[in-house]
Amino acid sequence: MNAYEELMKERRKSGLLGGIISLLSWDQEVEFPEKNLPLRIEEIGMTAALHHDMMIDPKIGDLLNEIKKIELDEDQTAQIREISYNYERATKIPTDLVQELEELSAKAKTVWAEARQNNDFAAFAPYLEKIVNISKQFAKAIDPEKQAYDVLFEDYEHDISIAELNGFFTKIRDHVVPLIQKISKKKKPDTSIITQSIPIDTQKKFNRELAEMIGYDFGKGKIGVSTHPFTGYSGRITTRYEGNWLSTIMSTLHEGGHGNYSHDLPFEHYGTPLGHARSLSIHESQSRLMENLVGRSKTFWKTLLPKLNKEYGFSLKPDEMYHLLNVVEPGYIRVEADELTYTLHIILRFEIENELMSGKLSINDLPKAWNKKMEDYLGLTPPNDTLGCLQDIHWSIASIAYFPTYTLGTMIASQLFSAIQRDIPKIDDHIAKGDLSLLNEWLNQSIHRHGQRYTTKDLIRQATDKDIAPDDYISYLEGKYSELYNL
Amino acid sequence: MNAYEELMKERRKSGLLGGIISLLSWDQEVEFPEKNLPLRIEEIGMTAALHHDMMIDPKIGDLLNEIKKIELDEDQTAQIREISYNYERATKIPTDLVQELEELSAKAKTVWAEARQNNDFAAFAPYLEKIVNISKQFAKAIDPEKQAYDVLFEDYEHDISIAELNGFFTKIRDHVVPLIQKISKKKKPDTSIITQSIPIDTQKKFNRELAEMIGYDFGKGKIGVSTHPFTGYSGRITTRYEGNWLSTIMSTLHEGGHGNYSHDLPFEHYGTPLGHARSLSIHESQSRLMENLVGRSKTFWKTLLPKLNKEYGFSLKPDEMYHLLNVVEPGYIRVEADELTYTLHIILRFEIENELMSGKLSINDLPKAWNKKMEDYLGLTPPNDTLGCLQDIHWSIASIAYFPTYTLGTMIASQLFSAIQRDIPKIDDHIAKGDLSLLNEWLNQSIHRHGQRYTTKDLIRQATDKDIAPDDYISYLEGKYSELYNL
Repeated sequence: MNAYEELMKERRKSGLLGGIISLLSWDQEVEFPEKNLPLRIEEIGMTAALHHDMMIDPKIGDLLNEIKKIELDEDQTAQIREISYNYERATKIPTDLVQELEELSAKAKTVWAEARQNNDFAAFAPYLEKIVNISKQFAKAIDPEKQAYDVLFEDYEHDISIAELNGFFTKIRDHVVPLIQKISKKKKPDTSIITQSIPIDTQKKFNRELAEMIGYDFGKGKIGVSTHPFTGYSGRITTRYEGNWLSTIMSTLHEGGHGNYSHDLPFEHYGTPLGHARSLSIHESQSRLMENLVGRSKTFWKTLLPKLNKEYGFSLKPDEMYHLLNVVEPGYIRVEADELTYTLHIILRFEIENELMSGKLSINDLPKAWNKKMEDYLGLTPPNDTLGCLQDIHWSIASIAYFPTYTLGTMIASQLFSAIQRDIPKIDDHIAKGDLSLLNEWLNQSIHRHGQRYTTKDLIRQATDKDIAPDDYISYLEGKYSELYNL
Repeated sequence: MNAYEELMKERRKSGLLGGIISLLSWDQEVEFPEKNLPLRIEEIGMTAALHHDMMIDPKIGDLLNEIKKIELDEDQTAQIREISYNYERATKIPTDLVQELEELSAKAKTVWAEARQNNDFAAFAPYLEKIVNISKQFAKAIDPEKQAYDVLFEDYEHDISIAELNGFFTKIRDHVVPLIQKISKKKKPDTSIITQSIPIDTQKKFNRELAEMIGYDFGKGKIGVSTHPFTGYSGRITTRYEGNWLSTIMSTLHEGGHGNYSHDLPFEHYGTPLGHARSLSIHESQSRLMENLVGRSKTFWKTLLPKLNKEYGFSLKPDEMYHLLNVVEPGYIRVEADELTYTLHIILRFEIENELMSGKLSINDLPKAWNKKMEDYLGLTPPNDTLGCLQDIHWSIASIAYFPTYTLGTMIASQLFSAIQRDIPKIDDHIAKGDLSLLNEWLNQSIHRHGQRYTTKDLIRQATDKDIAPDDYISYLEGKYSELYNL
């Protein structure tokens, strides 16, 4: 075995362990016996430590050095590019800082939950301050030359800079804010049917068939029930049947999109970059494409609506359903937001994170800054911080720079869908017949099967013949919502 | 941290990894997406290798040596007794032999499955020959002074010898064979109701309540659906709803008994001997106690039968139910056998394994020996080897000496139940009311909470004031079946 082969073997091993950690997490969210929680925490802690040891094992560095002497083909070069990047990054992080941040965020999560309940930002503020400071130290240890927020974002997407994101997001914001303002003056459709109660078995059956229709492979995954829908181990997805039946459907489409990506990754490269999703934003582009571009279209519901009407006992007309899927209603809470206002919830967080990390905004001024942006973007003033800057768990667990991947992915979804419409002129006819095989084949050929073969920018450029840009996303939103609301 | 504490820390770590392997296995049997099988095999292979490395790490030997200098209390002495035993045994097994046996049994399993289907013992014979030979080498590497079958049995129960088992089993056999002969001459009860189809949801509800009634803690476990019922990770149990509704109920009782034992093991000692079940036979005593001594009694069904009648739409009378629970019907297949004939299926296998390992019986003579014993013990001659010596998977995967734990556990269950009746004179009244709390408290105090604090013999002696013996089991069988069949 030469050094390259040995490195691949090591990576497959750590990849298997990483996958097992995903299974432990998936299992923990799906009908998990609650008294096993202390055991589960120990299991994840132990395997995460083992996994970390494998990732920073000096053997990896030695192998990477030896491989420099070997001539590599294109795929092998891509493997080494990504492994070197990850190894160098991982070995720069001081272990004691990791420990400190873990302990801090464990405590901060509890403090945050209480602060949110009591609408007491002051109680959470000192913890957030510490989290921001340690995150800055993290960033400095990894790359003292770069802005801290850039370095943190690289954890999720290392091919796009904060300056680029800023350009994309400002443009989106400047188009979406006036769009929402115009829609606000229009009459709202009646949405009361959304809260109608539907038996769980009926929903289970419909959502399973829906997942099959969008190409979700039940030979590789399954649908569990959890408090919050997510996609985990080997593309297994979850959903919930409480709340409203439409949000269950939308989450099946969303998680199904994630699941399809996971299922198409080449198993022969499992554990290595070529067998791994490109990035969080590309993953999100796959879920949003299925949820928004496909799932919120009139076309997709052509064959599906009669089935829904029959199984759920409705008599919805195509136009009514189309309105239900595309209601615009500014609100305080991100996770309850519609397609259009959701983007502004993310951009607001992105701007605030950016300013917190650069020091332009102090922790104490955070609530004021949050509320000001809510007013400017959505025309709403949160009555308290619980409905404002205390609503998300992310910062309490030191997930800074995670939010922007949502909008970046959503934006890329539109760019991909435009390319699909260009490459497959009759794609709408196929979708209208409930046949998504051509769409999925395009996604597999252009995105899924490549894993991390290309950088994010190259991947999208090759798939769409354009650089990553927000234009298709803005046209899509303006086109759809102008028509829907007669703007 | 002193050497003792360090050893406990190491053992907890390997215990956590062992638990994760159980979770991987549990998950693989419960609604597992079949295309993930190659991944799962790699995951289990990788973690099993990691686990094995931890178990034979020379560090363990060094710590055990250092601990010899420390004064230990009673519990600590028990911990070191068991860890030393396992470490010495594990380090004696040559790694290349493990590898060889694994590869052989992977192949042998396939050959066996085909041979069983084609009723072709000759095709399987050379593989069984090799498995027996390698098993002998295994035993010799571990302890060249002992009989090979003794050494193999120690994997499951290292406190009881084959000579002792021989004594127990011969006595059982000599009482059970005439009992079955007498019953064979009696009229069989009508059992057609057993095959009546009951909706799965009805069964799910009833079996969940049944598990709760016998004290199964859903805060620590759950019931999955699998092809064969079993108990795995953290006392999670499985069942199946095809086949007949009564076998589903009996398997809930059986697996629930296993689950209760697992759930009572002290979490503070997780991964170490004090937090680990004593042995497979003691585990089996817990499942058989719940299934047979409780579940097949008239008493237990006093409150339960009206509920069963109502929910399943039956109108069974107590006597009819009691007969259904205790039908005796000699058959060829072990896994379909009733309580009474099951024991003879095991004893037959025990005797044959013993003779194969000692060389008294050659592989080629196995079918003949099997059929002869079937005739002698159950009055049946298998029409072919598929219904005879080819029916079980165990030997093909090199599980030799596993079978006797079933009957040893079943026998111990009766001894424990006699002690419970002695210690709690009104236990029948409690069970008749559906209240198993006193029973479970007794089992927890006498068996569960101790883990491996005592050896198997000491544990049973302390719980019952008697040495392990088959007498209570024989009295129970003779008493119950004589009354039932008016012998």
